[in-house]
Amino acid sequence: MVKKTGNLEKFYQYAFPMQAVILTCKDKNGKTNPITVAWHTPISKKPALYGVSIAPNRYSYKLIKESKEFAINFVPFIHVERIHFCGKKSGKNIDKIKESGFTLSKSKKIKTKIIKECYANLECKLYRSVNLGDHTFFVGEVVNTKINDTAFEKDILNNKKIKPSYYLGGNLYTTISNNKKQF
Amino acid sequence: MVKKTGNLEKFYQYAFPMQAVILTCKDKNGKTNPITVAWHTPISKKPALYGVSIAPNRYSYKLIKESKEFAINFVPFIHVERIHFCGKKSGKNIDKIKESGFTLSKSKKIKTKIIKECYANLECKLYRSVNLGDHTFFVGEVVNTKINDTAFEKDILNNKKIKPSYYLGGNLYTTISNNKKQF
Repeated sequence: MVKKTGNLEKFYQYAFPMQAVILTCKDKNGKTNPITVAWHTPISKKPALYGVSIAPNRYSYKLIKESKEFAINFVPFIHVERIHFCGKKSGKNIDKIKESGFTLSKSKKIKTKIIKECYANLECKLYRSVNLGDHTFFVGEVVNTKINDTAFEKDILNNKKIKPSYYLGGNLYTTISNNKKQF
Repeated sequence: MVKKTGNLEKFYQYAFPMQAVILTCKDKNGKTNPITVAWHTPISKKPALYGVSIAPNRYSYKLIKESKEFAINFVPFIHVERIHFCGKKSGKNIDKIKESGFTLSKSKKIKTKIIKECYANLECKLYRSVNLGDHTFFVGEVVNTKINDTAFEKDILNNKKIKPSYYLGGNLYTTISNNKKQF
């Protein structure tokens, strides 16, 4: 394996494929805005914390700052076209839920709605915002979770049945294989 | 798709599969310690920031605090057994590099070594540590990158050729499919 120096400005692409999930947030009138994000990770078990990195020029940035909550929606690969749409278009002037065709359902512990077509949803209350470089890392406390009742076996994803969506960079996406290695 | 309430204590498993990467850090004598992590994400483009969540009881936690640097190594799935080993064993009393069989090479901008068998490496200088819940989020500034010269095409992973490693939870791992959807 011959190594060369990579492109420092594109360092984040070397971490792809990362799961493309849809964050939902709400405006002052309760209207839901979905945004596709790839830079996100669990952070802490107790309290249950989940972090997502968002640039200040995004419409969702303002909505999270104002509403102090958001939901993370894990989207099957069959909806990859909608994922791409929610990542490329801004919700500032359009209704991205309406245009993407996603269906919403109520959350249990927050006012922001979740996406029905997703196999898992995390309802989060804003716990902390950390300004890091040119993004803000929004850390949410997970206050409730919803899952598809056949997607997980003992809370581990059935990767033959459920295919999450992974962002490769550019306009490219992929998914997970049926392969499974157990130790 | 019938939804049910998930297990809040296991919320992070709903975000899996996440890429299992190996973080390398060094002790005071320069000895390299590899630790497998799944909770990590890019954070900012300029400056180039990468974050990883580590629990304070981990041996690597102390090493990162002291050395103020670390590297992120993206490991092909063919090495999944070594990935599992570096995640389950602590380097406090054993030499995990020696026992795993990984080969090290020098970094360009930091003193911590990188893993040769990986298709991409990010050399990071500690930029900030944020205590979040029961973990610390270590944010590194990426100061150099190394990549396998045939793994990426215009900095996008060739997912037919290179198979990254994904953690499913428990002792289970998977990888990426050959599938590719372009918009």
